[in-house]
Amino acid sequence: MSKSRKTVARKAKAAKTPAVGRARVKAKARAATVRKSPKTGGKWVYSFGDGKAEGKASMRNLLGGKGAGLAEMAGLGLPVPPGFTITTDVCTYYYANNEQYPKDLKPQVEKALAQVGKLTGKVFGDEVNPLLVSVRSGARASMPGMMDTVLNLGLNDETVEAVAKKSGDRRFAYDSYRRFITMYSDVVLGVEHHHFEDLLDRHKEQQGYSLDTDLTADDWAELVKQYKKRVLEEKGEPFPQDPHAQLWGAIGAVFGSWMNQRAKTYRRLHNIPESWGTAVNVQAMVFGNMGDTSATGVAFTRNPSTGERRLYGEFLINAQGEDVVAGIRTPQEITEAARKESGSDKPSMETAMPKAFAELNRIYNKLEKHYRDMQDLEFTVEQGKLWMLQTRNGKRTAKAALRIAVELANEKLITKQEAVLRVDPASLDQLLHPTIDPKAERKIIATGLPASPGAASGEIVFSADEAAQMKADGKKVILVRVETSPEDIHGMHAAEGILTTRGGMTSHAAVVARGMGKPCVSGAGSLRVDYAGKTLTASGQTFKQGDWITIDGSTGQVLGGKVTMVEPQLSGEFGVLMGWADAVRKLGVRANADTPADARAAVKFGAEGIGLCRTEHMFFDEERIQAVREMILSDDEKARRAALAKILPMQRQDFVALFEIMKGKPVTIRLLDPPLHEFLPHGDKEIAEVAEAMGVPPRVIADRARELAEFNPMLGFRGCRIAIAYPEIAEMQARAIFEAAVEAAQKTGEPVVPEVMVPLIATRAEFDIVKARIDAMAEAVKKEKGAAFDYQVGTMIELPRASLMAAEIAGGKGGAEFFSFGTNDLTQTTFGISRDDAASFLGVYTQRGILPGDPFVSIDQQGVGELVKIGVERGRKVRPKLKVGICGEHGGDPASVAFCHVTKLDYVSCSPFRVPIARLAAAQAALGKDAASQA
Amino acid sequence: MSKSRKTVARKAKAAKTPAVGRARVKAKARAATVRKSPKTGGKWVYSFGDGKAEGKASMRNLLGGKGAGLAEMAGLGLPVPPGFTITTDVCTYYYANNEQYPKDLKPQVEKALAQVGKLTGKVFGDEVNPLLVSVRSGARASMPGMMDTVLNLGLNDETVEAVAKKSGDRRFAYDSYRRFITMYSDVVLGVEHHHFEDLLDRHKEQQGYSLDTDLTADDWAELVKQYKKRVLEEKGEPFPQDPHAQLWGAIGAVFGSWMNQRAKTYRRLHNIPESWGTAVNVQAMVFGNMGDTSATGVAFTRNPSTGERRLYGEFLINAQGEDVVAGIRTPQEITEAARKESGSDKPSMETAMPKAFAELNRIYNKLEKHYRDMQDLEFTVEQGKLWMLQTRNGKRTAKAALRIAVELANEKLITKQEAVLRVDPASLDQLLHPTIDPKAERKIIATGLPASPGAASGEIVFSADEAAQMKADGKKVILVRVETSPEDIHGMHAAEGILTTRGGMTSHAAVVARGMGKPCVSGAGSLRVDYAGKTLTASGQTFKQGDWITIDGSTGQVLGGKVTMVEPQLSGEFGVLMGWADAVRKLGVRANADTPADARAAVKFGAEGIGLCRTEHMFFDEERIQAVREMILSDDEKARRAALAKILPMQRQDFVALFEIMKGKPVTIRLLDPPLHEFLPHGDKEIAEVAEAMGVPPRVIADRARELAEFNPMLGFRGCRIAIAYPEIAEMQARAIFEAAVEAAQKTGEPVVPEVMVPLIATRAEFDIVKARIDAMAEAVKKEKGAAFDYQVGTMIELPRASLMAAEIAGGKGGAEFFSFGTNDLTQTTFGISRDDAASFLGVYTQRGILPGDPFVSIDQQGVGELVKIGVERGRKVRPKLKVGICGEHGGDPASVAFCHVTKLDYVSCSPFRVPIARLAAAQAALGKDAASQA
Repeated sequence: MSKSRKTVARKAKAAKTPAVGRARVKAKARAATVRKSPKTGGKWVYSFGDGKAEGKASMRNLLGGKGAGLAEMAGLGLPVPPGFTITTDVCTYYYANNEQYPKDLKPQVEKALAQVGKLTGKVFGDEVNPLLVSVRSGARASMPGMMDTVLNLGLNDETVEAVAKKSGDRRFAYDSYRRFITMYSDVVLGVEHHHFEDLLDRHKEQQGYSLDTDLTADDWAELVKQYKKRVLEEKGEPFPQDPHAQLWGAIGAVFGSWMNQRAKTYRRLHNIPESWGTAVNVQAMVFGNMGDTSATGVAFTRNPSTGERRLYGEFLINAQGEDVVAGIRTPQEITEAARKESGSDKPSMETAMPKAFAELNRIYNKLEKHYRDMQDLEFTVEQGKLWMLQTRNGKRTAKAALRIAVELANEKLITKQEAVLRVDPASLDQLLHPTIDPKAERKIIATGLPASPGAASGEIVFSADEAAQMKADGKKVILVRVETSPEDIHGMHAAEGILTTRGGMTSHAAVVARGMGKPCVSGAGSLRVDYAGKTLTASGQTFKQGDWITIDGSTGQVLGGKVTMVEPQLSGEFGVLMGWADAVRKLGVRANADTPADARAAVKFGAEGIGLCRTEHMFFDEERIQAVREMILSDDEKARRAALAKILPMQRQDFVALFEIMKGKPVTIRLLDPPLHEFLPHGDKEIAEVAEAMGVPPRVIADRARELAEFNPMLGFRGCRIAIAYPEIAEMQARAIFEAAVEAAQKTGEPVVPEVMVPLIATRAEFDIVKARIDAMAEAVKKEKGAAFDYQVGTMIELPRASLMAAEIAGGKGGAEFFSFGTNDLTQTTFGISRDDAASFLGVYTQRGILPGDPFVSIDQQGVGELVKIGVERGRKVRPKLKVGICGEHGGDPASVAFCHVTKLDYVSCSPFRVPIARLAAAQAALGKDAASQA
Repeated sequence: MSKSRKTVARKAKAAKTPAVGRARVKAKARAATVRKSPKTGGKWVYSFGDGKAEGKASMRNLLGGKGAGLAEMAGLGLPVPPGFTITTDVCTYYYANNEQYPKDLKPQVEKALAQVGKLTGKVFGDEVNPLLVSVRSGARASMPGMMDTVLNLGLNDETVEAVAKKSGDRRFAYDSYRRFITMYSDVVLGVEHHHFEDLLDRHKEQQGYSLDTDLTADDWAELVKQYKKRVLEEKGEPFPQDPHAQLWGAIGAVFGSWMNQRAKTYRRLHNIPESWGTAVNVQAMVFGNMGDTSATGVAFTRNPSTGERRLYGEFLINAQGEDVVAGIRTPQEITEAARKESGSDKPSMETAMPKAFAELNRIYNKLEKHYRDMQDLEFTVEQGKLWMLQTRNGKRTAKAALRIAVELANEKLITKQEAVLRVDPASLDQLLHPTIDPKAERKIIATGLPASPGAASGEIVFSADEAAQMKADGKKVILVRVETSPEDIHGMHAAEGILTTRGGMTSHAAVVARGMGKPCVSGAGSLRVDYAGKTLTASGQTFKQGDWITIDGSTGQVLGGKVTMVEPQLSGEFGVLMGWADAVRKLGVRANADTPADARAAVKFGAEGIGLCRTEHMFFDEERIQAVREMILSDDEKARRAALAKILPMQRQDFVALFEIMKGKPVTIRLLDPPLHEFLPHGDKEIAEVAEAMGVPPRVIADRARELAEFNPMLGFRGCRIAIAYPEIAEMQARAIFEAAVEAAQKTGEPVVPEVMVPLIATRAEFDIVKARIDAMAEAVKKEKGAAFDYQVGTMIELPRASLMAAEIAGGKGGAEFFSFGTNDLTQTTFGISRDDAASFLGVYTQRGILPGDPFVSIDQQGVGELVKIGVERGRKVRPKLKVGICGEHGGDPASVAFCHVTKLDYVSCSPFRVPIARLAAAQAALGKDAASQA
């Protein structure tokens, strides 16, 4: 059935599988509940059928997902072919005991098999009325790589004749037998498929057949002979004729496949513990291939792509699963409405099998009400009678998840709070950015990191200046750089998207792009950029400036050429669900916003304030950078003050704009943070240009740049260290903030309470020195303007020492009034990992499981998290009302948001485009979804 | 008396004042005991005299150092002129109460003054038999910058006549009066000295006198008139004639001077709390200027330069203190033996004043026994009678401190343990390195950081290669670089000393130089190096390659020219005291040693093992660097292994040599730590050279160097991250270690238990992966060699996360068997300060008291220290026998060693030359000297 499943999934447009990292986190959480040692006696087998079942849905750990679903359906009285599940404990026992089964397993299987026989009126291995079964694996989590299914087990040279006689359809009987030999030989005996395909092809050629349906009963009987002969040749033993030997062979194959290489690899990648084991499901066969009143199919109870409430699926008449895999026949629609929509000339199930369809309708409604979620179903119709083979919660797109959750709540099937829990916060990203049309062909030329979501096409441009120029000329461009720096901001603004060949998820390009809501692929290391020649080389292809490329910031893919996009559309459900989320969350959500555009996006996405305004981004504006450079090149405080005086009115205007947009909502403004050399040009050419523009000899700039150069700028002369060495800079910024607060309050009528944030504090003395300057400036502005205003002075906690010294920093009179954890830098220092350089080894670290994921994406709860906890506890101990937030990139990561909730932070602050994610994640955390299981 | 004191000090050859940082730490510790608020009533005045005293030595906080010493001597029955001390509480009260004295102060002073009068048979202000007094300040800690002394207070136009009559010496009386007017006007009224000097000079000129002794009583009387007139002119008020007004004026001046700018600056620099306050000592005058049976002098009870047990000092007949300040007369020796040695023709005190000398002898022996330490005395002989004016523990050189401590113990005056506590560990540095001859002239051209102690002269050279060449030509050179890198090691080896213009106390140059025991001045920022022109510009002077300079790595001074050196000589007392120290210390002391030379030095200085062998230093050897570069330039593992195979035999030989020298003592070997780009050449010229030598195109090297380049190498691809990405490097090193262990054990007969240390661990998974490779290699070597050996695998704890995760890293089977705290890197990450870049702001930070000192020199006990404590506690909790050491530069810093003792580390490891310091500091810590008060 898996091919048909795939088809549905394809139609469902990107029923996205969860990202690796997220699944791993979830798996880890579940691992905590695993039983340490298997039981050595007791109940190993759980039967179901005839409206009863020993198991139920909640026994998923013991029965596996499939077994639990079958038991639950049977228990509900739905038509499930009778069968039994051999528990995961048997698997665990098997591997703990040198691949031996528990002694009492065999009698329990025999007994369960007899019970299945009794319910079906058949006997396993009987030569007159033989019971045939399917054997399927079924682990706790869906796990590709394991043995999947053996159908028609129990057939041999005698029973096939009995089936023929009993069904009155010899072709069906031999068709089933050859299917069984093929499957069993492949998955149990290790005789691969191609052997049988070869024989079939040769036979068809000899007979002049083109389709499998052309084969008669005798043809299949002849092929069965050939198949058995081939098995004998390959294995040196005949194909097993004893149905019990067949059964134990299949059971052994399922357990054996738990330890095959593919399964092991999958488990390692998804952090699924070996100790979970798999269950084995043995079930009476029902046949979709018993003629035109039989069929097999799959369905979703709602559209997994749009969420529309309508049965959605496909089926094949007179078929067993692997026919669909072969892909020769096109599946038919289930509902008549869908058939009409698709324009298919083949009848829908609704018209072809109205009775079975009606039954399916009844059942799916029942199952959806029972499971209170959209279900993914498998069924078979055997001579008009519907049998259910599987039900499980269906995978769905973000858009569908949103609609389904809201509608289920409106239908009162679930509560609003449950609805909030039903949507993966991270998936909202899909809804907020343009995405590549899933129908479009993807000519992938490289893959980097999915640094900022969304997709964009544009002409290649290699410099920020040219990007701005081309944008001005009405062109769409993708800015391609080895790495970006603050000097490139105007080019990033001009570009549709940014592509870099170096740098990680929190490189400059990534952080800024996320802030701007622009797509970005970073660290695409296989690309070669030649700035001089203005070329980009990828997989042997060379692209020139002006050639089109497309980047997909949600997957990290770089595509050649221009590709069709799908624009995001925010549905009404989005607003509804966000409203429900806001009603339950405890954590505030603010945005990191440096510009009026950022601030407007922040407000639009529901941010409750600005948690981080990085003033340095304002310094790079073309009009200002010259004054900034004058300031840096000044020899003395007087000259610096003169240069700063030029920046003051512009900086004040920045703040006025932000305050006006935020209308009284809190705004945290961080004083200048980066090392001053970031503002100077690099490279002889740039230096010469700037020197000319400034009218100074290039040597002056080069010398100063060399003086300021640092081995490790991340650990250098930055943050409050600048405010202490050059207090006039902090004073100018404080003045701009306070004057703007007065002006904006007058304009809007809303009082503005600016939160001034001192970066990179390691000691209380640093804080005191900078705060004294800020306080003095506030006094001065109050006097000058004759205006009263409140303000707070707080600090970034972004160094391990600051966390440890939190009590000192927040304590007593004049201590920090708020903390904002800068978890980007805190991660860098706690781990000793530079985010700009991490690409060289972090990939290996996450691939090999040394780290569960990129600690710059999701906060390292153990290490960095402990420092956050220490900071919060110690800070609040001395200042119970201390306002505590987080403003690193983690503020928009659901697992990190959950951590912040548990750690009792007051708010998280993230890129404007991640605000909805943070709101939803915060709500889920408040509803008890723990950080480890988040997103 | 201060000039005479200076002379003695000069003779004592560098009776070194304690380094600023240390004094500050001490002061801070004392601050903890300060009383918060002054008492508002009670006893403000403590009297002494006539063999009795209300105070005693232990009341130093209340009476100040001088007052406590006077009280103690008086209490011992020694001849102390009677007097009284106004307590430090009065000073505190004064400043807490708007510069008002406590109400009951005045009557208490009056009463005490009357008591002094009674004991001396005189009356203060009496016109017949007037009492004259001295007024001196006296804080808890000796504090330059405050008002010092007013002598002869109580003289006025009437009392001077009474003194003349009573003494029968009118010249003495007017001499005393003019001295009093001069001093009082200067320090109390603010009429500066030069006014009176001018008048005196003019008078001498008019009279044709050349010496002060030429002036008669009438001359002085005339000058007194002129002096008083000048005071009236300057102040608009007459010189005060009321002795009581004079007294309160002087008391007020002492208290006022507590808040003058110089005193404030001194306190800020030395972290002395304002709240300590100063005391005021008022004491009956005795006169050393009453003719040839009177004198004044200072003495040390042992030689403060050599420690020799002999009274050592000088005196002046018929003089008061300021005569000596004037420097006109040469002081005479006190003992006859000293007179003979100095060849002076002036009589010694022993012959000139035998009775007073005998009394001084009796008293100094008594005081030394009483104080159980060498004393620094001030005395006056008045008409044959000896009076004691001060006693305090004398300052001394390191050499003297060692000898005095050992001899006092041998004399049973103190215990051996007290002797151990008497020597400042940091001062031992003076004894282990050559120092600049104190008699030599110092032409200071720049001052940098005292990065590695000792001094050296040599010809300037600007490159490592040329340094090696010049050394080979028999020249002595000083390697001058902007900064050094591992490529410069051979040049550093060749040089007598290293001078850099950038980098801090733990820059590459500093760390390597200390390891080599070579002097180094780092971060001499005022120097300009021009590599191309091969010049060094300092304070306007330009030095060329080949010019001589001298560096003093103990002070940070850079001197022009060649300067005479004093070679270190280790006295017998050194060994004796070290033995006593070793007997009491709990903490082990190892050395950081990378080479056989280092290891031999380590053994010589008493190291008990090697705590850190940095294998990368071995990689820079000329023979090897090429193979290392081949390895780095290799495209695949196979090529890397081939290159590593060339390094293996050399690396093995390194370890064999170390193991042989250490003879079974533990040796901790750290796997390759620095980023690989450190091994590649930088700059086009070097790249071209290396490319030619290796026979590859320069572009290959340049490209690889660019690929490996990092923004923040400190937080980059280094440490265990290299071992994980390129396990073949760790395997080669492990093989070399284990093969060497087998070989060395066979050679020496001592089993070798190597400790293999994995650097930069942040997670347990990293440790597991690297340890698995090491274990596998140990098994392989055991099999190949048919030899058994033990070994341990442990880790550096140098990241905050590693400290927090200590339990995970050390826990269970296969956990780390030892921790070595790499507190250099831990300080960098905890503070977010790159030691290579810190110079740009750390100086400001320590000057402004934002940090108590350079955290790379003395461990930040609050922040970094808490992480060390956390690491130790969590590690030992899961592995109680976990061996824990420290191998950062802090291992040789006494305060840090004390911290390590308290934190219960097993050992510290430091540069070989700091091993004695660590041994002594560890002993002092074991004797209870706390970290805060340590050296």
